[in-house]
Amino acid sequence: MRDNGLYMAEALEQARLAAIRGEVPVGAVVVWRGQVVARAHNRREETADATAHAELLAIQGACRRLGSWRLNEAILYVTLEPCPMCAGAMVQARLAELVYGARDPKAGAAGSLVNLVEDDRFNHRVKVTGGVREEECAAVLRDFFRARRGSVPEGCESG
Amino acid sequence: MRDNGLYMAEALEQARLAAIRGEVPVGAVVVWRGQVVARAHNRREETADATAHAELLAIQGACRRLGSWRLNEAILYVTLEPCPMCAGAMVQARLAELVYGARDPKAGAAGSLVNLVEDDRFNHRVKVTGGVREEECAAVLRDFFRARRGSVPEGCESG
Repeated sequence: MRDNGLYMAEALEQARLAAIRGEVPVGAVVVWRGQVVARAHNRREETADATAHAELLAIQGACRRLGSWRLNEAILYVTLEPCPMCAGAMVQARLAELVYGARDPKAGAAGSLVNLVEDDRFNHRVKVTGGVREEECAAVLRDFFRARRGSVPEGCESG
Repeated sequence: MRDNGLYMAEALEQARLAAIRGEVPVGAVVVWRGQVVARAHNRREETADATAHAELLAIQGACRRLGSWRLNEAILYVTLEPCPMCAGAMVQARLAELVYGARDPKAGAAGSLVNLVEDDRFNHRVKVTGGVREEECAAVLRDFFRARRGSVPEGCESG
């Protein structure tokens, strides 16, 4: 049986790398046929690019690695529930599955505010599992914002 | 007064470039203080990247050009109503305004299927104007799919 916790540990490692670099700590990996084919963390500040979320970078990396925009058999692991942009990218990439850690009540688009990945009206649906290593995933974010005393997260990857 | 039709003509030019290259013809430009700071068309097939939609590439280009992930004063013109990924990216980039041409009843996320850009629950809202040069924008897509006889579009930028 697939060990979701093990793959989420790799996403958590990416999130911790982000924190060290002063980025809101969200990490993601893409798994394809049991192999991690892409790893990424949020790089919005470093790149000054609004789209440089962990999930988007991981999807782009997996497309490069697999040579296709269709990631049909791929599973994306991410430490935080995706925002609408990233959830939409998962549908575009025809991702098989999304596994996330902490819920994002402020901007989550895999069930919290909206559910873009399981909406029958779109041309693809992604299977969702939430709450994997939830406490650790939430703690990485909480510690980051606590250390930045006074700064308040404003949604997905600090919005 | 701002001439939306003039900027949409530039987006249409991008869409036509996409068609020539065998890409589902959607084009976008980002305007900032009256200047076009980024132009892009859909490049999904060429790049084999699920995220290479016109709008996402235009937002990334504008971030590079302006050196910031915040595009507060920017207006994005696109020939087709954005999909959830692209609409979500507009919110992430704090875009001021979205102007689109043709509606996308199958995957549109600026009012057709969902409205992610004007949702009060998110931390930013984008002003929307639809239907600018609508017939021309729709015709570019229609002609493209007609020429590819038998192929059926399956949503945003062919889904």
